[in-house]
Amino acid sequence: MSTYTAPLNDIRFALHDVIKVEPLFAKMGFDDANAELIDAVLEEAARFSNTVLSPLNAVGDQHGCKLDKTSHEVTTAPGFKQAYQQFVEGGWTGLTSAVEYGGQGMPETLGMATSEMVSGGNLAWSLFPLLSHGAVEALKHYGQDWQKEVFLKPLVEGTWTGTMCLTEPHAGTDLGLLKTRAEPNADGSYAITGTKIFITAGEHDLVDNIVHLVLAKLPDAPAGPKGISLFVTPKFKVGQDGVVGERNALHCGALEHKMGIHGSSTCVMNFDGAQGWLVGEPHKGLQAMFVMMNSARLGVGIQGLSQSERATQGALRYARERLQSRAPKGAINPDKPADPIIAQPDVRRMLLTNKALTEGGRLLAIHAYTQLDAAQHAKDPAEREQANTLVSFLTPITKACLTEWSIEATYNGIQAFGGHGFIAEHGMEQLARDARILTLYEGTTGIQALDLIGRKTAMTQGAGLKLFLAEVEQFIKDNAGNPLLAEFLPVLGAKANEWGKLTIDVVTRAASNPEELGAASNDYLFYSGYVVLAYWWARSVAATANSSQTDAFKQAKLETARFYYARILPRTLSHAAGIAAGADSLMAMDQARFDA
Amino acid sequence: MSTYTAPLNDIRFALHDVIKVEPLFAKMGFDDANAELIDAVLEEAARFSNTVLSPLNAVGDQHGCKLDKTSHEVTTAPGFKQAYQQFVEGGWTGLTSAVEYGGQGMPETLGMATSEMVSGGNLAWSLFPLLSHGAVEALKHYGQDWQKEVFLKPLVEGTWTGTMCLTEPHAGTDLGLLKTRAEPNADGSYAITGTKIFITAGEHDLVDNIVHLVLAKLPDAPAGPKGISLFVTPKFKVGQDGVVGERNALHCGALEHKMGIHGSSTCVMNFDGAQGWLVGEPHKGLQAMFVMMNSARLGVGIQGLSQSERATQGALRYARERLQSRAPKGAINPDKPADPIIAQPDVRRMLLTNKALTEGGRLLAIHAYTQLDAAQHAKDPAEREQANTLVSFLTPITKACLTEWSIEATYNGIQAFGGHGFIAEHGMEQLARDARILTLYEGTTGIQALDLIGRKTAMTQGAGLKLFLAEVEQFIKDNAGNPLLAEFLPVLGAKANEWGKLTIDVVTRAASNPEELGAASNDYLFYSGYVVLAYWWARSVAATANSSQTDAFKQAKLETARFYYARILPRTLSHAAGIAAGADSLMAMDQARFDA
Repeated sequence: MSTYTAPLNDIRFALHDVIKVEPLFAKMGFDDANAELIDAVLEEAARFSNTVLSPLNAVGDQHGCKLDKTSHEVTTAPGFKQAYQQFVEGGWTGLTSAVEYGGQGMPETLGMATSEMVSGGNLAWSLFPLLSHGAVEALKHYGQDWQKEVFLKPLVEGTWTGTMCLTEPHAGTDLGLLKTRAEPNADGSYAITGTKIFITAGEHDLVDNIVHLVLAKLPDAPAGPKGISLFVTPKFKVGQDGVVGERNALHCGALEHKMGIHGSSTCVMNFDGAQGWLVGEPHKGLQAMFVMMNSARLGVGIQGLSQSERATQGALRYARERLQSRAPKGAINPDKPADPIIAQPDVRRMLLTNKALTEGGRLLAIHAYTQLDAAQHAKDPAEREQANTLVSFLTPITKACLTEWSIEATYNGIQAFGGHGFIAEHGMEQLARDARILTLYEGTTGIQALDLIGRKTAMTQGAGLKLFLAEVEQFIKDNAGNPLLAEFLPVLGAKANEWGKLTIDVVTRAASNPEELGAASNDYLFYSGYVVLAYWWARSVAATANSSQTDAFKQAKLETARFYYARILPRTLSHAAGIAAGADSLMAMDQARFDA
Repeated sequence: MSTYTAPLNDIRFALHDVIKVEPLFAKMGFDDANAELIDAVLEEAARFSNTVLSPLNAVGDQHGCKLDKTSHEVTTAPGFKQAYQQFVEGGWTGLTSAVEYGGQGMPETLGMATSEMVSGGNLAWSLFPLLSHGAVEALKHYGQDWQKEVFLKPLVEGTWTGTMCLTEPHAGTDLGLLKTRAEPNADGSYAITGTKIFITAGEHDLVDNIVHLVLAKLPDAPAGPKGISLFVTPKFKVGQDGVVGERNALHCGALEHKMGIHGSSTCVMNFDGAQGWLVGEPHKGLQAMFVMMNSARLGVGIQGLSQSERATQGALRYARERLQSRAPKGAINPDKPADPIIAQPDVRRMLLTNKALTEGGRLLAIHAYTQLDAAQHAKDPAEREQANTLVSFLTPITKACLTEWSIEATYNGIQAFGGHGFIAEHGMEQLARDARILTLYEGTTGIQALDLIGRKTAMTQGAGLKLFLAEVEQFIKDNAGNPLLAEFLPVLGAKANEWGKLTIDVVTRAASNPEELGAASNDYLFYSGYVVLAYWWARSVAATANSSQTDAFKQAKLETARFYYARILPRTLSHAAGIAAGADSLMAMDQARFDA
């Protein structure tokens, strides 16, 4: 069984010493979010994750969820419901929600740090409360007053949970193809009919009511994505007076048989004329859905981070314990029959790769979340606008890179265990199976890559990139004489510079050939991610100067940064070549020739 | 459910047009192995795989194996036993075994091509007959005459199967640590006592008897790997007269719960004073085991190839069928609501990556097997010696790269399916779970990488590399004026040259610091694999000139080669940087600081 200790210390270093969130929060008007409260919240989240959620991680994998085909009710794994009750009682569901709806009004950045620990403890479990947050955001921004009145409080306090009902068998990436219909009823509501698939927490036994936010088409809807509307469609009907009524005409038709996250109920949801209420304007559902989706995408990045952390911890523990062969320079453990495998350079390569991607990734994510907070709470509208541009740019990088790195980190986790990594009892293989969903849902890595290079770069003339590069440039300037950084800054500067040039090059080519964007997208995504991490590793080293962490901790940051620059950052060499290669070699082959 | 069609056509192209095996086989004295017979064998293997094995692939995953805790008998999944009987009746178990023991004496190269199809049809099933081959090789080379007499025929004809019992809970990579004991009995046999884990096909219901080749220590054994002996220890005792007697004192204590290959019985085997017979000399068991292991390592490479092929086929089919969004340059399917996703450049990147790694990897493997055949059957002793050097060098590359590429190919397979890739019914997630064992067993990728850079390169002064590079140089010279190759050869030549230089560089550094080998090993492995594939892609293009394949097939080879050189070969840039980076950044961190 894999174990997990929430990485409190590194989270604190990231929040307080590197990003320095306290003054940021104060500037945004989060008056309560001082260092003392932040640390208290983090400690409590760590305790909950370590003692309540983490022990249920393997339980959820083994038991999964059970669907009663007659009642259509879903039973979660043993302990899941009790854990959820404790989560609600602890006030976690409303941590970052508005005070007016019963939330605690804390910054999303703090919510992210606690989310990392919750997902790290138990990814499958963490999906039950997760989507309520998106539902709250969509209703808060687009819901009618009575909808806010009726739905937000129970969602925020966690007595109800939310879902996002987007995907249909023939409509995933391309939601314009969806077939679910919404016919007007006499009372102003709509009758929703259709089938949705891959609905996370679509049905379960943790709460009294489940609030489905469903994309569907009105009878007069134009074809394609501009004809989609959003409906709030609860499991038990809710009147405009807030009174909960009879069972709505919707049910879970099946649970998907999945590779991982067995503890999460992934449902086929059938809507058979279910009563739903329009949220926002007709045909503008996709806009509302994007509010949910962007927050969900960042959230999935955090899930990736959490699984990387858990895999790294498992691999490190095993690499220290497992005695096998001798160190290359001779026994370091001469009184034992063999040395720990952490003495082997290639095992260290795997551990350091995980460490560098995880700790660096944490900073990338926290930074993105501070921009999310600033986009809503900064006093100055121009600052809000700028933060919004930056977080929009960082969202696909956060989502895709942190989840892709979780594939790599859980791969390394298994690999460090050798054959034992393939066996269920050690828990490493579960991490790899669980993490495997992360590069798929809320938009595959391919979709994120296209979003980054297209909507977030080519279509904005690189607005987000320019903001990020300006930050890097300022950092380099500020640290020009810093001896700690002398070995890193010239490399960072050169990479940042190259990033800009590669961007101009590919966007220029795309002007005459739109295939160039998709052709470069994957390499551009990873190139971006690795340069962003080079920045955060340099900043980590800079932050050790005024940190109260131990000398060993600071030394480890410096050593990991050196490893990152020596062994990971050179991946940009291949990605730069991929970006420069152009579309021809991808597009030349007629589709019939692929298996000629 | 994923489907599979054995890639007969590409195998034929590889064997006949690129490697040109017929004259090679004739030179080695395989008089029967002419083109007609080769094709007949390939076709029959394809038929068996497509119609018998492939339909059982998902069945094995769902049913797994069942252990009766009272009788210690293991029942395989429905259909597995019948398929095995057909396999035996078809004479497949003895295809490459010596005629004197009932085999058909065909080249290993041909066996490899059929193995790819068998594993592609059903990886888990293919593990039941697989290890008999290694057992036959070990007994043939090291067994006493009566042992050959008694064990080889039933192993070759498939009425019995073999196992390799190496690993113990505390001894995996480091077999010197093993604890299983062998005490002499009065009758010349030994009483074997100990626990072995991860024993593939250790117990099952497909055959009458199971022949375990067990590593154990004699009472007077010196410590470490030089104190290990090999014993043949059948499930049912077998007298020197060949009479099968009573049940031996060994049994399957448990089946491992694994991430994948559920259809294969991976056993904990308990030996409680079981009767075993010494094979070869005392304390020299590891030598005999290496005979089995080298052949098994190449075999695992083929398993990787087979899963890459299957994943590629699944992804290609889906990418053509799945209609979602529009092609970047506008609708190519204007009468349908959307275009197939194969129109998307990034989906093509995944498909072409799989195609390039799979078809190129096939040639790398076939080439290695021709050297394996030549090492045994070439008329000239110098040629045998040279072939042996080359196959020894190519074995870790084949094993590690083909299995690592299967991780990538099955990753791409899932990714092309989007969320559907995570769902069991499409079969793509099974491929990823099944392939996940391949970089672990028979020596992890880390072990292969160390074998390549250490034993096979540094310790031989690059003997294998020099042979390979000489072949590349000759090919470049022979094709100096070939217009088809003009775009590839300068790049290939430069990479081959760089490979030599990087090797000298790292081996030189290792002379003063043995950690340099392990530090560079992983990058050196991949660097090597990608340059080898660059050679095979150039040779594939060259071979199209005199091939009877269709124009579309030849055009696809040229286009895939171009893709390979443009988008995959540049990975060598990062790997070269990793090789050059040196050991310091890996070794600096004290092990206590990893989570300081």
